[in-house]
Amino acid sequence: MFYHSGKLQYEVRVDRPDPVFAKYLQQAIGGVEGEIRVAMQYMFQAMGARGEKRFRDMLMMTATEELSHIEFLGHAVALNLEGAPLSAQEAASADPVVGAILGGQNPRHVLSSGLAAMPVNANGIPFDMSHIYATGNIAADMLANAMAESSGRVLASRLYNMTDDAGMKDMLSFLIARDTMHQQQWLAVIEELGGIEACMPVPNSTPEEHENLAHSYYFLNTSLDEPTPEGVWTNGGPAMDGRGTYTARDRVEPEGQVPDLGRAREGSGAQTEQM
Amino acid sequence: MFYHSGKLQYEVRVDRPDPVFAKYLQQAIGGVEGEIRVAMQYMFQAMGARGEKRFRDMLMMTATEELSHIEFLGHAVALNLEGAPLSAQEAASADPVVGAILGGQNPRHVLSSGLAAMPVNANGIPFDMSHIYATGNIAADMLANAMAESSGRVLASRLYNMTDDAGMKDMLSFLIARDTMHQQQWLAVIEELGGIEACMPVPNSTPEEHENLAHSYYFLNTSLDEPTPEGVWTNGGPAMDGRGTYTARDRVEPEGQVPDLGRAREGSGAQTEQM
Amino acid sequence: MFYHSGKLQYEVRVDRPDPVFAKYLQQAIGGVEGEIRVAMQYMFQAMGARGEKRFRDMLMMTATEELSHIEFLGHAVALNLEGAPLSAQEAASADPVVGAILGGQNPRHVLSSGLAAMPVNANGIPFDMSHIYATGNIAADMLANAMAESSGRVLASRLYNMTDDAGMKDMLSFLIARDTMHQQQWLAVIEELGGIEACMPVPNSTPEEHENLAHSYYFLNTSLDEPTPEGVWTNGGPAMDGRGTYTARDRVEPEGQVPDLGRAREGSGAQTEQM
Amino acid sequence: MFYHSGKLQYEVRVDRPDPVFAKYLQQAIGGVEGEIRVAMQYMFQAMGARGEKRFRDMLMMTATEELSHIEFLGHAVALNLEGAPLSAQEAASADPVVGAILGGQNPRHVLSSGLAAMPVNANGIPFDMSHIYATGNIAADMLANAMAESSGRVLASRLYNMTDDAGMKDMLSFLIARDTMHQQQWLAVIEELGGIEACMPVPNSTPEEHENLAHSYYFLNTSLDEPTPEGVWTNGGPAMDGRGTYTARDRVEPEGQVPDLGRAREGSGAQTEQM
Amino acid sequence: MFYHSGKLQYEVRVDRPDPVFAKYLQQAIGGVEGEIRVAMQYMFQAMGARGEKRFRDMLMMTATEELSHIEFLGHAVALNLEGAPLSAQEAASADPVVGAILGGQNPRHVLSSGLAAMPVNANGIPFDMSHIYATGNIAADMLANAMAESSGRVLASRLYNMTDDAGMKDMLSFLIARDTMHQQQWLAVIEELGGIEACMPVPNSTPEEHENLAHSYYFLNTSLDEPTPEGVWTNGGPAMDGRGTYTARDRVEPEGQVPDLGRAREGSGAQTEQM
Amino acid sequence: MFYHSGKLQYEVRVDRPDPVFAKYLQQAIGGVEGEIRVAMQYMFQAMGARGEKRFRDMLMMTATEELSHIEFLGHAVALNLEGAPLSAQEAASADPVVGAILGGQNPRHVLSSGLAAMPVNANGIPFDMSHIYATGNIAADMLANAMAESSGRVLASRLYNMTDDAGMKDMLSFLIARDTMHQQQWLAVIEELGGIEACMPVPNSTPEEHENLAHSYYFLNTSLDEPTPEGVWTNGGPAMDGRGTYTARDRVEPEGQVPDLGRAREGSGAQTEQM
Repeated sequence: MFYHSGKLQYEVRVDRPDPVFAKYLQQAIGGVEGEIRVAMQYMFQAMGARGEKRFRDMLMMTATEELSHIEFLGHAVALNLEGAPLSAQEAASADPVVGAILGGQNPRHVLSSGLAAMPVNANGIPFDMSHIYATGNIAADMLANAMAESSGRVLASRLYNMTDDAGMKDMLSFLIARDTMHQQQWLAVIEELGGIEACMPVPNSTPEEHENLAHSYYFLNTSLDEPTPEGVWTNGGPAMDGRGTYTARDRVEPEGQVPDLGRAREGSGAQTEQM
Repeated sequence: MFYHSGKLQYEVRVDRPDPVFAKYLQQAIGGVEGEIRVAMQYMFQAMGARGEKRFRDMLMMTATEELSHIEFLGHAVALNLEGAPLSAQEAASADPVVGAILGGQNPRHVLSSGLAAMPVNANGIPFDMSHIYATGNIAADMLANAMAESSGRVLASRLYNMTDDAGMKDMLSFLIARDTMHQQQWLAVIEELGGIEACMPVPNSTPEEHENLAHSYYFLNTSLDEPTPEGVWTNGGPAMDGRGTYTARDRVEPEGQVPDLGRAREGSGAQTEQM
Repeated sequence: MFYHSGKLQYEVRVDRPDPVFAKYLQQAIGGVEGEIRVAMQYMFQAMGARGEKRFRDMLMMTATEELSHIEFLGHAVALNLEGAPLSAQEAASADPVVGAILGGQNPRHVLSSGLAAMPVNANGIPFDMSHIYATGNIAADMLANAMAESSGRVLASRLYNMTDDAGMKDMLSFLIARDTMHQQQWLAVIEELGGIEACMPVPNSTPEEHENLAHSYYFLNTSLDEPTPEGVWTNGGPAMDGRGTYTARDRVEPEGQVPDLGRAREGSGAQTEQM
Repeated sequence: MFYHSGKLQYEVRVDRPDPVFAKYLQQAIGGVEGEIRVAMQYMFQAMGARGEKRFRDMLMMTATEELSHIEFLGHAVALNLEGAPLSAQEAASADPVVGAILGGQNPRHVLSSGLAAMPVNANGIPFDMSHIYATGNIAADMLANAMAESSGRVLASRLYNMTDDAGMKDMLSFLIARDTMHQQQWLAVIEELGGIEACMPVPNSTPEEHENLAHSYYFLNTSLDEPTPEGVWTNGGPAMDGRGTYTARDRVEPEGQVPDLGRAREGSGAQTEQM
Repeated sequence: MFYHSGKLQYEVRVDRPDPVFAKYLQQAIGGVEGEIRVAMQYMFQAMGARGEKRFRDMLMMTATEELSHIEFLGHAVALNLEGAPLSAQEAASADPVVGAILGGQNPRHVLSSGLAAMPVNANGIPFDMSHIYATGNIAADMLANAMAESSGRVLASRLYNMTDDAGMKDMLSFLIARDTMHQQQWLAVIEELGGIEACMPVPNSTPEEHENLAHSYYFLNTSLDEPTPEGVWTNGGPAMDGRGTYTARDRVEPEGQVPDLGRAREGSGAQTEQM
Repeated sequence: MFYHSGKLQYEVRVDRPDPVFAKYLQQAIGGVEGEIRVAMQYMFQAMGARGEKRFRDMLMMTATEELSHIEFLGHAVALNLEGAPLSAQEAASADPVVGAILGGQNPRHVLSSGLAAMPVNANGIPFDMSHIYATGNIAADMLANAMAESSGRVLASRLYNMTDDAGMKDMLSFLIARDTMHQQQWLAVIEELGGIEACMPVPNSTPEEHENLAHSYYFLNTSLDEPTPEGVWTNGGPAMDGRGTYTARDRVEPEGQVPDLGRAREGSGAQTEQM
């Protein structure tokens, strides 16, 4: 069950409101790298978690933190929209440094939300929940989470660069820090489960007889004119899962048939010439 | 530039067509765990790759392989649809073991594609390209790829369990094998880049002064009644990135203000009582 | 800032797991009538609230409650999926009363989430955040909320009818009750603002000179052969906003021009014949 | 069955074409507050209407009017696009007051539609029909309609403010007026059905024994540090539905269990450590 | 401006309601082959039509007809849902021939619409307006329309096969007929414009100097092992646009460079190793 | 099976990078008129092709070519993004001719992809695979393909006009040329199948007794005040399919009933007043 405090997790200050930056900042709320995504992803992973209770708890606790991130980022967007022009006249007289505000802002920040944050990304596209990755497999989920926090920290770093506002830089430096922790926290779960070798290949519960092992350890060079890129994945050393040896194959012939579906059946809606 | 052979990468055989399994199999084509996703993800990552050429090449080569997976899975779906009922009468007389086909199949396999694969998932939802994760940061991208292959192998394993068809099991065992390789191949890139420690936190190019380091190494227990879950992420040991020490905080007070946007401006479309 | 308890807001019990009902129940999580919608809608309305603080608080408090509803419904879905068949053999031997499970369940409950809830509706379609209605106008928002809770209670009532499971009926009777309160709570805000008459027309801050009042109080009968439906909206009585008198017009002539865009410009990509 | 006149419902005049305003205006066509939404919503509600015929007729008549609104707004967008630059050179020489047109206009107004309206919103996002709310419950539908017209009038008022063009202001003042009528017309249906008290809680056909009435009349304060907001919803007075008394509860303990799904089943695709 | 009659364009009769067929029938309303699509496509094409008025009129007239098709199909869906089970008990006792109704019907026909049509396809996916193709080029639009009516008639034919209901077959035979006319009507516009040769290549207004004519008339065989398919497109005869001669090229070498983006810039959020 | 060369199909050169043009160019990658669409459409059509093998081969060969187009367009976008501002300071000092870059570029080109192409259109909307039209009917598919290539060439022509960059103009002139060929190649398949008359109406396999021929050859004038537009479709001449004669009907009366669904059933979630 959830509870709430009236205060924000972190202080939000905007020294110089900027409606165009408000549009950019939306990516951290409703983008695939943003906070709605991680809040909901961790929550659904927690709700479906089977196995050790501590992992479920960890997921739900961080889900709860991410909800608080949505909240203060939402406040940051609204503060950046203070003073956005509400009329053609206001726009014409707007600060020329900020520039072509009418063209550059998200129109819906004026038209739809009345100068407030929306659950959308920097293009105004609403977040959609297909991005909540929760597989029921804890190793796959932890990789999904590490990835989400990595792209989240990449985003926060880019946003940090895109603003001159000291208040915004301060808030973003907090987000960058929390993403640092969250990246490592999810990878630490993999450590607790024995590390990459023990977890690989995901899922590690697939019986070996379900796998055509002849195809499990070669890199396939599908290029007609480029050499196989060299690296540990082709050097003949042991694979990461400890079960095989990395090799490479290039310019291989197809192993399958020429596909042929024959002619169409009557009543299938094809043209007569296909039947 | 791309080229094609008329043969499939792997032999596809369906011993006993099953339109309901065809619906399930679509997840491996048009699901977020499926082949369109990885083909396009690796291709867009390759197109945006900066840095060492061998990583770009690796991405494009595997993108090309995944295109071939779409192709043979598409053939597998079509073969499973052979014999699907095209009329109410055919449905009524269908094999009772397969069961309520009209209700259980994807209606659009009959109505829209004429007994062929579609770029949709097992719910009939078309794949959408927002799932192509390509950040321009190679570590974030490799985590995204390892995740995609992990969920892909989870899916292939589940599909393997859901069919009795020997041909389908054979094809899926090939996919399970290739996903094994691909998981490890992407994680091997992280090895080449110095390993997790060197890559963390992603992006490792963010200047430290952009990060509020006071918040980078504690796990935040946001629960009111559950203890902090124990693990390497709270045990006071070194963080994975080698820069800090894992700690935990619980029942922390908010650090921010009570948010207050004041009253609405004239002309903002709010109610008068808000102004 | 958000906090969490390890316990659910309400006890969840499933006496007889039913994967097909799990599919139906998803509508209450990820449907437009569901809990993700109201949780996020109230949260975004709260974050953008201008005017009296008590309305903002009210919104955030109920947003927080709705997050708890997502949580226990997610548990209910997972419990209904206990025992769902993981293989073709299990499906063949499934309880014949439940019926054609393989065809009738959401395939992704097996393939994608591993027997857990997803942020999707009963068709497996992920919730998308375009349904978060938050206008910055408190009267419009309250109507949106009353509507959401009305459709939510309609849904919960229908789900109640669709199950025989005593545990599920108990949980749904709790949801039906909370939706009762929430409907009235949002309409009570309109009372506090002076009632419907004072709030209408929304927004009541639009200057009268922005409105072509000649068109504000007639019902337009656009039918060629049906009489104007009788009711208070056509009976010559006072309009709800107290500013006008309800009338009706039928078979009116268009007041506008025949639209004509002329010929296409050179360089516009039209056919030469259009230029 | 539908018919059409060659003339527009209302005269459309654009004194000074403005491609950036054309982008904004799209919200009134393809936004969730726009005309496609209400036209289709009323049409689908009408097609599913059960009960008194006059409500069905009313819905279909206004659906028909909204189709006419799409039509003249579409013409307004096209007229605003007259003179939009079709080449880099034209853009460079464009009226500097209008500003950075290439960056500020919707690129697809040039690239995709050839200077004509599209069924998209101000961000260029196509309208999707998930926003057609039609529940089969007339009270829920009327609230949905009143909400749609409220947000529609908020939008039209904001658009009115965002333009200096006399022709556009005239057209928008007509829309503002029609939205005034439509808001009240839908709420009048609730009056005809006995008013809010008789309609509440929606659906009023749910048997009382399906509702856990102990939870129907308290406001839940989920905040840890904010007092319960005062208002009619907490003041001990009668609830709007006449069945109960408004109260409040705060800092309540959860009533449910600590959720526990146990360990994962074999064959479920989880990691071995979860089983 | 639009008007309406209270009667349907065509009589709708359902002799034996079938909720599973109701699900299938939705494809003709909200599918990409369905009536919402053509109604809106023709309407938006008409609103953007430049050039001869008769084509605009034709488009709007048929748009109006398609609105009437939505209407009677919506009634057909509702009639098929009469008698759909509203409770677990009703479902258990349902006609065994129809089969596993709870699993096979669209759950939202019960849960969301209350036994009425929805603007969704046979998978329950709402129609989205990105499928409204209106380019501003009349030849491209006519091809889009001919395609829409072709896929529409394919769909109607398949639906005809999928039902035994005499009333439904009668209604579908009307749709099949109207699609026959509409296909030919749109292609007739191309005849009026001089036929395929005069219209090709679309747009025929592109100046020849904007086209690299060396690449305009060869079929590119990108296969490594399949011969060039023979046909008029490779036989050395005149191309359809009368400007060139069909030829073929196979196993061509790429003409472009090996792409190379160099190293990432500082501040771009890449890993240090990429810079 | 697919293969790849390290070189691009066509040389890509950008003389003067332009981040705003990069946004426009995205329409050719991820727009409905773009290359992802045709690549995937032809690939799925090929995978479902029944009938003569040469058509399947043709489809797959051109699908393969379109993949190569995605690739070089992706490179073109990345080259246009070279030099896009990564910070507020860089933006402030940007080339004033290019103009308000921060407002006019796609923010995600900086925030999400790190200066690289994305699978999105010019509004930043990800391509969704519902636009892959593959019906199993070869005539419908060829019309869909001719339409796709027509809108593609319209788009390429418009993009050509919107840039001054010689490198970009050269690349676009290549695309314009290939679209010329592809348009004619797909229509040539219809020639091979006997031409329009033999193919019409699509599908030509629908038995005549499934069609209500009384409604197959009249144009329906649904306008109340516009004359029937004159043309071959109304002139009494032979229809294109050779089976009928074109006529017209105007101001027709509806042939159907007044729809009536009666009262709502108990348990359906309607209001009591509807029952």
